[in-house]
Amino acid sequence: MKQKLSIVKIGGNVIEDKEELTKFLKLFAQLDGLKILVHGGGKKASEILKKMGIAPKIVDGRRITDAESLEVITMVYGGLTNKNIVAELQAYTCNAIGLSGADANMIPAHKRPVGQIDYGFAGDVDGVNGSLLSQLLGLGLTPVFCALTHDGRGQLLNTNADTIAAEVAVHMSEWYQTTLYYCFEKKGVLKNISDEDSVIKHLDPKSYATHLDKGIIYDGMIPKLDNCFNALGRGVNEVRIGNSSMLETNTDTYTSITM
Amino acid sequence: MKQKLSIVKIGGNVIEDKEELTKFLKLFAQLDGLKILVHGGGKKASEILKKMGIAPKIVDGRRITDAESLEVITMVYGGLTNKNIVAELQAYTCNAIGLSGADANMIPAHKRPVGQIDYGFAGDVDGVNGSLLSQLLGLGLTPVFCALTHDGRGQLLNTNADTIAAEVAVHMSEWYQTTLYYCFEKKGVLKNISDEDSVIKHLDPKSYATHLDKGIIYDGMIPKLDNCFNALGRGVNEVRIGNSSMLETNTDTYTSITM
Repeated sequence: MKQKLSIVKIGGNVIEDKEELTKFLKLFAQLDGLKILVHGGGKKASEILKKMGIAPKIVDGRRITDAESLEVITMVYGGLTNKNIVAELQAYTCNAIGLSGADANMIPAHKRPVGQIDYGFAGDVDGVNGSLLSQLLGLGLTPVFCALTHDGRGQLLNTNADTIAAEVAVHMSEWYQTTLYYCFEKKGVLKNISDEDSVIKHLDPKSYATHLDKGIIYDGMIPKLDNCFNALGRGVNEVRIGNSSMLETNTDTYTSITM
Repeated sequence: MKQKLSIVKIGGNVIEDKEELTKFLKLFAQLDGLKILVHGGGKKASEILKKMGIAPKIVDGRRITDAESLEVITMVYGGLTNKNIVAELQAYTCNAIGLSGADANMIPAHKRPVGQIDYGFAGDVDGVNGSLLSQLLGLGLTPVFCALTHDGRGQLLNTNADTIAAEVAVHMSEWYQTTLYYCFEKKGVLKNISDEDSVIKHLDPKSYATHLDKGIIYDGMIPKLDNCFNALGRGVNEVRIGNSSMLETNTDTYTSITM
């Protein structure tokens, strides 16, 4: 029987709200068993870019990571956000250790090839150093990943935090029974977007197809859920989508996704 | 017989010069045996503060770490500088892992008490988690410390990099035969400040006293050397002062300090 491992991803909305972040970190610290946190960046990087007089570069509605943006992202994600989360978790007696994908060569990646769009310093993940990550867990540590990877030749790269969480969960499934938590502002995947309490409790490929057919799940939720099923297909045991409260014990107010 | 461990500190002058930094990191990566890097910050933090329109706060010629400065220091030391050094070391096949004192609770500290001067978020070191640091070394990792500590209650603190290097070396001396390297722009402690080749090859308490009496060592070198002898008195085997070249094999162009 494999040991349980929780991989929890929090997004910008939680990080930006000091009170929400504290609520989340306290719950995360209390979460039983082995765990890994992955955090996104939030609006702080944009704020800093603005304060420094650097305009964000957007092509076809997509943010491009140019050299100046990468510098600010490295400062904010890898420094400010990551170290403050680690320090706060330490206060809740969770022995956190902050990591980028460059640290201990945890997440090797390559610069996304230039096609119709040049995404700049965006990294596509090549793998996760799961063996070494297991050894850190074995020392009683709780890894806290920011959304940075590296190409192994000295170049840091910007990688989507959802992707990092999924890739970490997938690669750790070789050794652990993994649950991947996507923590966002809503209670879960909703049947009715205007009713916060209409959480779909469970999704599997069959019920997902039905919800898609009926038009209940649409737009931005589709790529997110496709990614969840992709992770499940690659060995992750369960994906949970909801807000911070889903980390509370004895709660079922979230969407549980399984194969 | 204890295993050998090198603790190497580089200052701002090396970090600011891309070519010098690369030269140093290549030498550091090739350094035989277990090793730990500690880096200072350099002028980048001041530059960013300036770009963001924040004036550095200086009282009696001493820099005060107010909340805004701490935020920028955390971004620059913990993020930009630390992650880029780690990524570059990875390129030289040195399995580096970046750490602040908050990560894995490596360096607990307390906010310096307010006396005649309120230093703000300056941290005085309480200890080093040497046992866990040894375990990271045992995994084949090379820790890279930035000059940040934490108070265990969620507050990051700014701590002098020379002090961090000395404290790490002192605490690791329980398990290892430690050599502490202070890497700066000169070849070592000079007999004649205007002659770069007048390096004093060896200092011990007796010869140090003689050099002090003769006025050969004066001013800013005195507190630095006092700190070195303090570290030696607390278990460090040897302190070496010089520039990057002292990491080359078969070189003796540095000042070796022993008890």
